[in-house]
Amino acid sequence: MRNIELKESERVDDLQLDGLKIIQDTNGFCFGIDAVLLSNFAEVKNGESVVDLGTGTGIIPILIAGKSKAEKITGIEIQKEVAEMASRSVLLNKLEDRLSILNINLKDALDHFGKSSVDVITSNPPYVNTGGGIINTEDKKAISRHEIYCNLEDVIRISSSLLKPNGRFYMVHRPSRMADIMEYCRKYKLEPKVIRFVQPNSEKAPNIFLIKCVRSGGKELKFMAPLNVYNLDGSYTDEIYKIYSNECIDVFEGRK
Amino acid sequence: MRNIELKESERVDDLQLDGLKIIQDTNGFCFGIDAVLLSNFAEVKNGESVVDLGTGTGIIPILIAGKSKAEKITGIEIQKEVAEMASRSVLLNKLEDRLSILNINLKDALDHFGKSSVDVITSNPPYVNTGGGIINTEDKKAISRHEIYCNLEDVIRISSSLLKPNGRFYMVHRPSRMADIMEYCRKYKLEPKVIRFVQPNSEKAPNIFLIKCVRSGGKELKFMAPLNVYNLDGSYTDEIYKIYSNECIDVFEGRK
Repeated sequence: MRNIELKESERVDDLQLDGLKIIQDTNGFCFGIDAVLLSNFAEVKNGESVVDLGTGTGIIPILIAGKSKAEKITGIEIQKEVAEMASRSVLLNKLEDRLSILNINLKDALDHFGKSSVDVITSNPPYVNTGGGIINTEDKKAISRHEIYCNLEDVIRISSSLLKPNGRFYMVHRPSRMADIMEYCRKYKLEPKVIRFVQPNSEKAPNIFLIKCVRSGGKELKFMAPLNVYNLDGSYTDEIYKIYSNECIDVFEGRK
Repeated sequence: MRNIELKESERVDDLQLDGLKIIQDTNGFCFGIDAVLLSNFAEVKNGESVVDLGTGTGIIPILIAGKSKAEKITGIEIQKEVAEMASRSVLLNKLEDRLSILNINLKDALDHFGKSSVDVITSNPPYVNTGGGIINTEDKKAISRHEIYCNLEDVIRISSSLLKPNGRFYMVHRPSRMADIMEYCRKYKLEPKVIRFVQPNSEKAPNIFLIKCVRSGGKELKFMAPLNVYNLDGSYTDEIYKIYSNECIDVFEGRK
């Protein structure tokens, strides 16, 4: 393992996938199950280009680098310190030939990529519509969670511009934003193709969902069976065990 | 019980709710679980007006008449013979003071009701987008199932025009049309407020869903826990038993 410098509040977690590791700031926003499920949900073919919008720790592009043979993977992160930490995770994993972190506002992504140039876009964007409410714009966790520097429509509009025709968009979001997501996806020609709800267990309402859209795709939306995180006895479901290794679940449970 | 004439292919089924009965044509389209679940899902307050768009046998307004104290209930049905049969079910149940069947195309509903005049609209519309394909327009089942005389956008547009501000729209439809539904609901100011998916069982993908929208409502969409029709052992779930009586399930199983 390379010798990568860690800041005082940082720790290295083992992702239990091809020896991949990630640096997280214990005072900041650590990655959650949403990012892991999205990385698992996204299909990436050999040689494809992938852009992750709002990459945070870099968890999604690092997991995609681990599971795929994508050639050009980019994580876009607006927060300088967070992007710098993600870049060190790239180095730690010796992924710098395939994966780079770009410290820009995702709204400026078209300045860095050609229009209609990307095969796959992933995003675990801020979920909360601030509605113009006052938020501490210096707070790293708030920036990850609230639509401060970009909103849902920005994410969908930019993704549509970046994607090749038939390029795929994978996002995780809250069910409460479903109508907004459908409205914007139709507006920007990202046709919803697959939706999967994630529920705490089979008797609970879904709290997140995964969506696959295709740029200028035909109208044919399929729903998968819901993914339950826990069995009714409180243990993890087999499917969650398949997605996470046991150790990775420990990481998940340790997140803030 | 009144003596209501039955045609040769018709039968009377007991709905096991306040002694309600319904006439169905064994050669035609009999009501399904969709209509029963929608009737159960729709909230109707005392004295409210209710319009059911594409009422078929009249199952939805008859069940709503049975479970509520709605005062003016109307079922709209384009097929003359089907509307006539539904009207006989109204008489059979002595509901003619509260419930009437209107034999018109739902697209002409504004000629019969004032704009912004209705409290609640329900609809179990044709699910299948024909995409301009050739369908037998004389076939009663085809008319109930395919968008021949009206399409999804018509149902949502007309509902929005008929409803009072804050009036409620309840619909059952297929998940595959979710993006269309969200797009049209936003277009015509019917804000999605509650969604419930219905699954064959907890491990299967949903095959229908229930949606509540509010005319000019605020953006706040909630998802309920999915409704499973069967337990994993193949028996009906407790919730389905609560919605159906045992006899009513027999009716359901006997449907075409």
